[in-house]
Amino acid sequence: MIRMPAGPLPAQGQPSPRLPSSRYMISPEEALSYVLQSAQPLDARAVPLDDACGLRLAEEVRADRPYPAFPRAMMDGFAVRMADAGKTVKIAGEIAAGQPSDLELTDGHAISIMTGAVCPPGAEAVVQKEHVRCDSGQVRLPDRLALGSHIAPVGSECRPAALVLQPGDTIGPLAIAAMASFGMESVLVRPRPSLAIITTGAELVGAGQPLQPHQIRNSNGPMLAAMAREMGLDRPLAVHVVDRLDAIMAAFQQVSERDVVLLTGGVSAGDYDLVPEALNQSGAETLFHKVRQKPGKPLLLARRGRQLIFGLPGNPLACHLGFSRYVATALRIMQGLEPSPGPLEGRLTGPVSYRGNRTYFGLARADRVQGLSSVWHVVPLSGVSSADIFTPCMANCYVEVPPGVTEIPAGELVRFTWIPGSGD
Amino acid sequence: MIRMPAGPLPAQGQPSPRLPSSRYMISPEEALSYVLQSAQPLDARAVPLDDACGLRLAEEVRADRPYPAFPRAMMDGFAVRMADAGKTVKIAGEIAAGQPSDLELTDGHAISIMTGAVCPPGAEAVVQKEHVRCDSGQVRLPDRLALGSHIAPVGSECRPAALVLQPGDTIGPLAIAAMASFGMESVLVRPRPSLAIITTGAELVGAGQPLQPHQIRNSNGPMLAAMAREMGLDRPLAVHVVDRLDAIMAAFQQVSERDVVLLTGGVSAGDYDLVPEALNQSGAETLFHKVRQKPGKPLLLARRGRQLIFGLPGNPLACHLGFSRYVATALRIMQGLEPSPGPLEGRLTGPVSYRGNRTYFGLARADRVQGLSSVWHVVPLSGVSSADIFTPCMANCYVEVPPGVTEIPAGELVRFTWIPGSGD
Repeated sequence: MIRMPAGPLPAQGQPSPRLPSSRYMISPEEALSYVLQSAQPLDARAVPLDDACGLRLAEEVRADRPYPAFPRAMMDGFAVRMADAGKTVKIAGEIAAGQPSDLELTDGHAISIMTGAVCPPGAEAVVQKEHVRCDSGQVRLPDRLALGSHIAPVGSECRPAALVLQPGDTIGPLAIAAMASFGMESVLVRPRPSLAIITTGAELVGAGQPLQPHQIRNSNGPMLAAMAREMGLDRPLAVHVVDRLDAIMAAFQQVSERDVVLLTGGVSAGDYDLVPEALNQSGAETLFHKVRQKPGKPLLLARRGRQLIFGLPGNPLACHLGFSRYVATALRIMQGLEPSPGPLEGRLTGPVSYRGNRTYFGLARADRVQGLSSVWHVVPLSGVSSADIFTPCMANCYVEVPPGVTEIPAGELVRFTWIPGSGD
Repeated sequence: MIRMPAGPLPAQGQPSPRLPSSRYMISPEEALSYVLQSAQPLDARAVPLDDACGLRLAEEVRADRPYPAFPRAMMDGFAVRMADAGKTVKIAGEIAAGQPSDLELTDGHAISIMTGAVCPPGAEAVVQKEHVRCDSGQVRLPDRLALGSHIAPVGSECRPAALVLQPGDTIGPLAIAAMASFGMESVLVRPRPSLAIITTGAELVGAGQPLQPHQIRNSNGPMLAAMAREMGLDRPLAVHVVDRLDAIMAAFQQVSERDVVLLTGGVSAGDYDLVPEALNQSGAETLFHKVRQKPGKPLLLARRGRQLIFGLPGNPLACHLGFSRYVATALRIMQGLEPSPGPLEGRLTGPVSYRGNRTYFGLARADRVQGLSSVWHVVPLSGVSSADIFTPCMANCYVEVPPGVTEIPAGELVRFTWIPGSGD
């Protein structure tokens, strides 16, 4: 788990801490601190139960009534009286699950009963149908009966108003079942952030358009949308703009209601010459705009009110790292989740090399070693350049190489972090 | 990884092996074998690129052209000639990314160029703008130039028609980026199975309906839908029917086009008295219908053509195990994925007890031990009965207790398997 650099997350509604704006190159750890400090859990919102799985609860959930709400038969068989052990008694009726009944059980009688049905008043035990002999309306009971056997008493599984789920609990399928039992149709949660992706760059051509030799297709937009979707987010609003200040400003206006904005690539007059100006004129505050990392040095974080804006490099591998390490962290915090699932450890099958003075994040593929649990092989998948998305196509994780280290040799134990959605 | 009991999966289109139909109680391992042998990868289908992430590819993907398609500048700076090292040369123009240009570079000149732009004919290197001094239309070049520096040659990242992805590859965000680069708008994959959930039982009341004291709300339907959704499936078709043969038959007819049908619970005339008959009359073949496990003994598997039908117990914990262990496996195989992500190992924080002669699957919560990777604490969350969904609400895994073992004590290392969608 990545530790918060400055204590716990700011509570809902509190002003976020005042961050010193850094326009100088900062370390990847400092950049992550900015993300951790500027991302805040979103306001709680009611969502239909159908959409709540995987989200964090923002209210207490208490049982609406005792469970079971009636003494429930746990087996198909007969409701009986203790006094009738070893006797042959008359079958006085039948009660099916979901059937209201005014039957009452008295000595000398048994009532045929189904799993899940209401045990009648007077029932002291349920005997499995496999353990009795029935004949012409009568049933011969075992010699020994255990008081209360195969009857779940009222409230034995859950008392009325018992606290079953608490704010902050992650809603799983069993929590869905419990809330459905309580008759809840919606639940208060930290919602999934809404996302907008603004792609810029005159060289970019969308799918289905004719392509000139000097142009390339928009690959960052679909890649970022896929990563967001793998994290469970709704389809992002996608906007493509040309590299003009007024166009970028208009796009910012268009996405002003989104919780997070990703701006990617190709500001052709030089990296982020237009973007900081557009951010400035839009009333956004730039928190940092360069990080000592490879790939992805020209990474930018800004905020406008509670909206976070990430300026991701146009280089596809740099864009990918920007989402994996920084955007995904912000998206998780906004949902009230842990900032990161934390690294795992695995053994490198080949060297990871980097010559430079930045922190290097190398793509790799981690696979579980056959037959052994929790042991991973990590295969480096470095491309020939930081624009090569083809060689590392099957990567599912990153391996971090600290500045000053030129190679981690094959055979070393390394920590790796999943690419969002690739976790096993 | 769960090993296949009878060799590899049957290939697409082959008839599935003839399975002996078992109407007797079988072990959980045998039940899983039936699932592994009867589930088959679905026919390949083209899906939009937007929906393809996480699926298995069913075609080869090859590069549509070389990458880069033109000699690409990797930095903002100047395209230069080797002969001009150390000289001051005239700036003969500018080329932005995405801009076609008929400029040609000759000795004594430099051309201002942006990252991602087409290097002009004659360019032998790109010099970063930080490494030169510009003044009144001229630029002073460094004394040493490296041939080809900061220029990515045509095809250096990917040759034309290079095989980039193969059938069987799992499509991740980088694969989406590569396919988007190649101009693909859809891709042939093993699709996600379509699912129907038929809930039965007179005692069940849906959300928003008034509830009588002898009734309970439908919790299995929402729980199964949540588990399916956590596995990435589309919203299932949900049908509720009363416990009558004709109603169950009509429901089977209604869901005949679905790949997988889950039938859950509450057949009030006794477990599966109506269902096998309905399956039989619908032309389905029942493969097994009882498993020596707790919870979830009355589990049923049938098939009708290529459709798989699971009869899950009405008991919510039994229903949950049925999905987690058997249905999820079938859904993964149908998508061409590994049958199971395989168990992890963790240390029990409390005992797991079971008195009985079946295999016991106990719910638990596995959490990563703080600060250490790959070390898990496993907290047993057994409820008071197998209908108690409240106590184990926060469970994320199962611990298996073999038959004959009455207790696994606290402190033991145990294997656990994730509940679908709970994996870290």
